[in-house]
Amino acid sequence: MNVILLSHTPEPDALVAAAARICYRDVTAGELLQGEEKNLSRRLIADLFTSGHTSTFEHVSFTFGVDGLSRVSSHQLVRHRVASFSQQSQRYVKMSPDPEAVVIPPSVKSNPDALRIFTDTVAKTQEAYAELTSMGIPKEDARFILPHGHSTRLVMTMNARELHHFFSLRLCRRAQWEIHELARRMLLLCREAAPVLFEKAGPSCIYGKCGEARTCGKPYKDMEDLLV
Amino acid sequence: MNVILLSHTPEPDALVAAAARICYRDVTAGELLQGEEKNLSRRLIADLFTSGHTSTFEHVSFTFGVDGLSRVSSHQLVRHRVASFSQQSQRYVKMSPDPEAVVIPPSVKSNPDALRIFTDTVAKTQEAYAELTSMGIPKEDARFILPHGHSTRLVMTMNARELHHFFSLRLCRRAQWEIHELARRMLLLCREAAPVLFEKAGPSCIYGKCGEARTCGKPYKDMEDLLV
Amino acid sequence: MNVILLSHTPEPDALVAAAARICYRDVTAGELLQGEEKNLSRRLIADLFTSGHTSTFEHVSFTFGVDGLSRVSSHQLVRHRVASFSQQSQRYVKMSPDPEAVVIPPSVKSNPDALRIFTDTVAKTQEAYAELTSMGIPKEDARFILPHGHSTRLVMTMNARELHHFFSLRLCRRAQWEIHELARRMLLLCREAAPVLFEKAGPSCIYGKCGEARTCGKPYKDMEDLLV
Amino acid sequence: MNVILLSHTPEPDALVAAAARICYRDVTAGELLQGEEKNLSRRLIADLFTSGHTSTFEHVSFTFGVDGLSRVSSHQLVRHRVASFSQQSQRYVKMSPDPEAVVIPPSVKSNPDALRIFTDTVAKTQEAYAELTSMGIPKEDARFILPHGHSTRLVMTMNARELHHFFSLRLCRRAQWEIHELARRMLLLCREAAPVLFEKAGPSCIYGKCGEARTCGKPYKDMEDLLV
Repeated sequence: MNVILLSHTPEPDALVAAAARICYRDVTAGELLQGEEKNLSRRLIADLFTSGHTSTFEHVSFTFGVDGLSRVSSHQLVRHRVASFSQQSQRYVKMSPDPEAVVIPPSVKSNPDALRIFTDTVAKTQEAYAELTSMGIPKEDARFILPHGHSTRLVMTMNARELHHFFSLRLCRRAQWEIHELARRMLLLCREAAPVLFEKAGPSCIYGKCGEARTCGKPYKDMEDLLV
Repeated sequence: MNVILLSHTPEPDALVAAAARICYRDVTAGELLQGEEKNLSRRLIADLFTSGHTSTFEHVSFTFGVDGLSRVSSHQLVRHRVASFSQQSQRYVKMSPDPEAVVIPPSVKSNPDALRIFTDTVAKTQEAYAELTSMGIPKEDARFILPHGHSTRLVMTMNARELHHFFSLRLCRRAQWEIHELARRMLLLCREAAPVLFEKAGPSCIYGKCGEARTCGKPYKDMEDLLV
Repeated sequence: MNVILLSHTPEPDALVAAAARICYRDVTAGELLQGEEKNLSRRLIADLFTSGHTSTFEHVSFTFGVDGLSRVSSHQLVRHRVASFSQQSQRYVKMSPDPEAVVIPPSVKSNPDALRIFTDTVAKTQEAYAELTSMGIPKEDARFILPHGHSTRLVMTMNARELHHFFSLRLCRRAQWEIHELARRMLLLCREAAPVLFEKAGPSCIYGKCGEARTCGKPYKDMEDLLV
Repeated sequence: MNVILLSHTPEPDALVAAAARICYRDVTAGELLQGEEKNLSRRLIADLFTSGHTSTFEHVSFTFGVDGLSRVSSHQLVRHRVASFSQQSQRYVKMSPDPEAVVIPPSVKSNPDALRIFTDTVAKTQEAYAELTSMGIPKEDARFILPHGHSTRLVMTMNARELHHFFSLRLCRRAQWEIHELARRMLLLCREAAPVLFEKAGPSCIYGKCGEARTCGKPYKDMEDLLV
């Protein structure tokens, strides 16, 4: 999996703090991005995060490019509705015969017998895809035989409020491993671009207690524990 | 594919007309669902539809149960963000070894050679899935080897405004065949439950001209042409 | 203020439980609303609520008719984006000269001096509106002089997940009094229509601890305390 | 009214074109923002706009600061749900006694008698507000007596797809004059920041024919006609 931060709203921390100021203080729009704003942003944003008043986080958004994610996980990913996705089309783009085009789960990779079964079967589906398309079956129909673990590419944009929501769900230890890994890489990139806004992030266990009905029993100790 | 209408807002046509009346007339909430309302609804709704003022259509929603849709198509389907989905989990539910559990595209079904390749390969992926799970590979990882055409089940709710949007996109002749068939069955069910609200529906070609950059050149003649 | 439940998805508790079942069990869409479903729904829904897995609550929606709410509060209300609103237009409907057309806050009503100032000023704005419209100023411009507390009418639809979110915010003791009263009446109506789904509802203080940065210090004791 | 562009996604035209490319071509995320991309974007974006395939426009967003908009218009504005708003609170910020704090509609300004009635009445409401607050009535209740035309401040973020939708509705000649003027200024700012993405924008009458049930009969001739 390869995840890059393609773009983001400039100076995210300052813009969020500016939007929060217009709600509660007598300040004009023109004054918002000037003066002592930046010194204030850290404490202000921490307060907003703690009390859950994160609507101002929506003003900044982050656009990621993702390669090598399985379509199993992209199917989950696009369930996040407060987000924008542009995904490689299997109707229009011919799928590669490369064995690495299919994502292998770690539980399979670490078991030699399982790995052999998996890669042999992948090869058969790729052969079938090649045969079907060469017989004139449209790409959009031939793909029905490709494994669900086939990798995809996408461009995805989320605002910082939705990103926090995403991290709270998908960095839980009970989340599916691949979307968990995607979330971890996204959070690393977000923390570089907006250190104040993402100083805190992740599932509730880091900051308080687990909200799940069936807890995993292994709360994260801190942000480092989450990001390693 | 099996599609049923599990539930819907009662008397959808009357409720939409009532919501439209509160905007433009001096009427109390208590009076909305009384009196001559029902006679008015047909013309009123036709006007709203024609001029694109369909925000009142959001007050009524329809809940469908769907079986036997491929995960290829459910991946597209859940891209509709103004909708609610509950989908069978492949993390928690074991997938059936039944050959019919994988959707076969018509272009494959009608070609004996293609069909043989397809069904042979499906069988191999189902064997691999069975072997992997019996070796202790978790269901959520073994499914990576199942075909993308594997069928799924879901419950889906959309309001009438989003349904009209859905029908305008997915009943286009250029839409992918399986989601087109899903849309056709949904529209048949909607027209029974709310004949006025769905008297007109579908891609722009039926009512005016095609908006696509690359048109198919075969505009629908009328609703019957669309629904057959 | 007058609040009525105009319509809702039939049998909301059963439909939510059915949607939850399709995710985790091997059941077809056709079987969902049959059999022992109803006995299961209470415990199942309680579990979903407690762990915050309330996406299935989106399948049922509730439509309210509201009269006599101030435009101060309707301006706040329409900030809820996962909701549908049809509101009386001040561009098209002429505003009544009735003194009761403007909402009087309790803090004003209980102070005779304040009440006199308030009602005298309301009368002046209503006279000005009448004069301006009789001079040919369009209704949509004359309304600029009417008080922000002028009452409005609307039809509003929210699904049960958004309703829970709405109740958690707007039934907090620190919420603005009028939207708090609207929320209280809506919850009473919801509990009649879907007793299991809304058995629990409201701000976090009833079930655990307050999440606000500045707490009011007066947590609700129980549902009765909230609804009186 | 004062409208400024506080921030936006950098290089909006190039990012939209990049997102479109990942859908239809065999390109990695890392290659997206390199090479001949920029020369391609103009024709590609024009195609996307014409055929209505504007989901890629969602990847770029624009944040505006607005001063001196009436609360009549902000009430309409926040009905756009695919947008983020942070608005000055009348619960927490004391309203100014300045006569210019209330927006005067042009139809009133150009009629001396109407103007006198309007400004006299504004003065009375501002006196009433001052008296009520000095008597201990909370700001959040005293504001009920202020005119609906009272000005507000806000920070607003919309993505380019929603902006196009906003411009198509609010630049119609039948739109309310104040939100029309807001839209005009926003479009001028957008065209500076993203000339390709907003080369075309506005109501359907510029590019084809009016979709309204009751047309104004005065279609715009071109973009200049719209923006003057």
